[in-house]
Amino acid sequence: MKKQKRSSIAIHSREILAEFIGTFALVFAGTGAVIVNHVSQGAVTHLGVSFVFGAIVAALIYSLGHISGAHFNPAVTLAFWSSGFFKSDRVLPYILAQVLGAVTASILLVLSFGVVADLGATLPLNGNWQQSFILESVLTFILMLVILGSGLDRRAPIGFAGIAIGLTVGLEAACMGSITGASMNPARSFAPALVSWNWQHHWLYWIAPILGAQLAVLVYRYLSNEFKEMVG
Amino acid sequence: MKKQKRSSIAIHSREILAEFIGTFALVFAGTGAVIVNHVSQGAVTHLGVSFVFGAIVAALIYSLGHISGAHFNPAVTLAFWSSGFFKSDRVLPYILAQVLGAVTASILLVLSFGVVADLGATLPLNGNWQQSFILESVLTFILMLVILGSGLDRRAPIGFAGIAIGLTVGLEAACMGSITGASMNPARSFAPALVSWNWQHHWLYWIAPILGAQLAVLVYRYLSNEFKEMVG
Amino acid sequence: MKKQKRSSIAIHSREILAEFIGTFALVFAGTGAVIVNHVSQGAVTHLGVSFVFGAIVAALIYSLGHISGAHFNPAVTLAFWSSGFFKSDRVLPYILAQVLGAVTASILLVLSFGVVADLGATLPLNGNWQQSFILESVLTFILMLVILGSGLDRRAPIGFAGIAIGLTVGLEAACMGSITGASMNPARSFAPALVSWNWQHHWLYWIAPILGAQLAVLVYRYLSNEFKEMVG
Amino acid sequence: MKKQKRSSIAIHSREILAEFIGTFALVFAGTGAVIVNHVSQGAVTHLGVSFVFGAIVAALIYSLGHISGAHFNPAVTLAFWSSGFFKSDRVLPYILAQVLGAVTASILLVLSFGVVADLGATLPLNGNWQQSFILESVLTFILMLVILGSGLDRRAPIGFAGIAIGLTVGLEAACMGSITGASMNPARSFAPALVSWNWQHHWLYWIAPILGAQLAVLVYRYLSNEFKEMVG
Repeated sequence: MKKQKRSSIAIHSREILAEFIGTFALVFAGTGAVIVNHVSQGAVTHLGVSFVFGAIVAALIYSLGHISGAHFNPAVTLAFWSSGFFKSDRVLPYILAQVLGAVTASILLVLSFGVVADLGATLPLNGNWQQSFILESVLTFILMLVILGSGLDRRAPIGFAGIAIGLTVGLEAACMGSITGASMNPARSFAPALVSWNWQHHWLYWIAPILGAQLAVLVYRYLSNEFKEMVG
Repeated sequence: MKKQKRSSIAIHSREILAEFIGTFALVFAGTGAVIVNHVSQGAVTHLGVSFVFGAIVAALIYSLGHISGAHFNPAVTLAFWSSGFFKSDRVLPYILAQVLGAVTASILLVLSFGVVADLGATLPLNGNWQQSFILESVLTFILMLVILGSGLDRRAPIGFAGIAIGLTVGLEAACMGSITGASMNPARSFAPALVSWNWQHHWLYWIAPILGAQLAVLVYRYLSNEFKEMVG
Repeated sequence: MKKQKRSSIAIHSREILAEFIGTFALVFAGTGAVIVNHVSQGAVTHLGVSFVFGAIVAALIYSLGHISGAHFNPAVTLAFWSSGFFKSDRVLPYILAQVLGAVTASILLVLSFGVVADLGATLPLNGNWQQSFILESVLTFILMLVILGSGLDRRAPIGFAGIAIGLTVGLEAACMGSITGASMNPARSFAPALVSWNWQHHWLYWIAPILGAQLAVLVYRYLSNEFKEMVG
Repeated sequence: MKKQKRSSIAIHSREILAEFIGTFALVFAGTGAVIVNHVSQGAVTHLGVSFVFGAIVAALIYSLGHISGAHFNPAVTLAFWSSGFFKSDRVLPYILAQVLGAVTASILLVLSFGVVADLGATLPLNGNWQQSFILESVLTFILMLVILGSGLDRRAPIGFAGIAIGLTVGLEAACMGSITGASMNPARSFAPALVSWNWQHHWLYWIAPILGAQLAVLVYRYLSNEFKEMVG
């Protein structure tokens, strides 16, 4: 088992490096914008931070999507796995690469700016975790539905998935960012939590996104007639 | 007649679920942004709310357009029907799914936030319904013209309809949102009106969008030589 | 001569109606955003107004470009004519349709809002017309270069001209709008000037855009080796 | 050697003029937005300036990319050269054209506005050059990775490189602009430094972008299996 996993890492080292770099860039830019917004007395603005999160995701899909599939998100990797489009032995390497890339970004940001704005950690507004749990689940449900529909369905026009997914990340950050943090991504929440050592309600940002993404797989499986039209 | 409709629902259940989910996501994100903007003392900004409305429409067109045609709007469904691109027996199921999806979103939002900002209901500024009636008609006329021209005309470049339509929704919300609410969509206006029980001038948000969209069908019929170049 | 023109109008009535509607929509949305921004104490914001101008241009290119070429601008029509891609007998009908469409939009806006913010008329900041003359020329030079390069050159990727041109209009409005009005379009400047009867420095918004666009034709002619790679 | 270079200039005069005009437009619009933002008491906003930088890059890639490759940046030209996609004898002409185009834009801006806001010169916040050096390197690393992945890799969807690269420039300006100036481009930094004669920490804006871009070449060489899938 262990041997198999190591060989899988060796074979797929390009995919895994792409996931590491992509998640690094996502967290560097996205949580970097949160930090700089704090440092610069709000010069970036909440809408600007949302734009940064959405734009970096779109840009990375166009630059690394053909290498690794551009997950950059453990909830997405697990959803691809449960939908049958992703092999089991690659799940753990992908998630580790994503988490490591995110943590590297948070470390670079703490070295550059110190512990500011909890390094962009996601927290439920006023500690209302029930509200944030439901909303994060719904946000990730919509995001994963857009990923499956625009990115994997053969009937969708070619190439526009990056725009559709980037817009979704950006709009969900604009819409619900000030309530839940609009993480939709356990790796993106884990890194600032670790480096700023703020674990409040952290479990939520693993369970809710994974739940929402899995629900999207169930729904899209029905919408696409058991994935018959998928690229997979 | 009744039997036929029920069978049509059975056959087209994927389309109808896609319309339900799409309109749910549209109202959840769009009116959610209005609510969160209120809750967060304007952190989303009016431009941010407009971006959310436009971006969710674009993202949903790329993810669900190949399943249901991505109407998410009774005025659009009725315009497709009167232009001959949509079968009569599917009109009512589509509109019901849209309304139900929108209401589900408003219920989720009222459970999450309470009755805030009328749940994003659309109202004519200063009660000037004549002004809003004309402007809503013109806004939906432009929107439907863009839908027909970019989405159904064979001569338009493939795949860009989602961007064109999303930009139109976003720009019209930015431009006229603070005057009329920039609904252009009876389902989007109905759900917050129902759940916040605010029916002031509500008729306007059914009649004006339907009127504007029908006018666009007439005009585009002429522009495209009786729809000879259409995908239908 | 007169007969020929009238027949040209009859034959090309679809193109001419598309130019009328397109320029109507451009001026309705764009100068409408200026007016609503004034009425709503800046709710749209300067960046929002710029977004509206850029987005409506992009949306109209995707919806009407295959019908009329989507000029919506006398300076663009004259530049296409002088570069040899547009027949002489269609120049005047196109420009008349554009001006009439723009004026119709300004009349609708004055009926809806009264004479507010000069109906979105363009004026040189502090009356410094020399500064505005130079900058408007440069802005239209860049815009026309983008139109020729992205829209007519066969080597450019298909379909992206709408995005490139819309972005250019939006960025130039964001960049220089508060100095020159960032018109780049005589019809867009003429309509609010006429309806609000403010003709100050109005000549500038005909001469500078036409000059800048003609210069772009000269430069792109060289860049493309006498237009050898053009769609024309 | 000298003869060879001059002949190369003669042969490639179209490419070189495209680089001159492109970098002129980039610096005119981008640093113009910085200047107008200062002149108009912040009407453009920081997010607006970032939008202008990103949008002009995207628009220019779609209009001039098929002529010169749309570098507009000495760090990009040097990275293409070291990756083997660009001939040695064109490197210096390209860089000279870029610098000259940028300087022409700065001169036009100083004639139009005077020496305002250091003409958009980039400076490390609070003189902290170590911080800016690291961040500029990382920003250009991400930008060059996006250029290589979306623009030169055959497996990326055709035509979307302009959007991906424009988004990256825009998001990096939004994210880190208030800390480092988010130059990522020695020519863009050189021109305002020269014309406003402010050379503080100027070396940084040559060394850091070049370093970051070269690192991206190394990484993408591995990711793409020695560039085997590249367009070159």
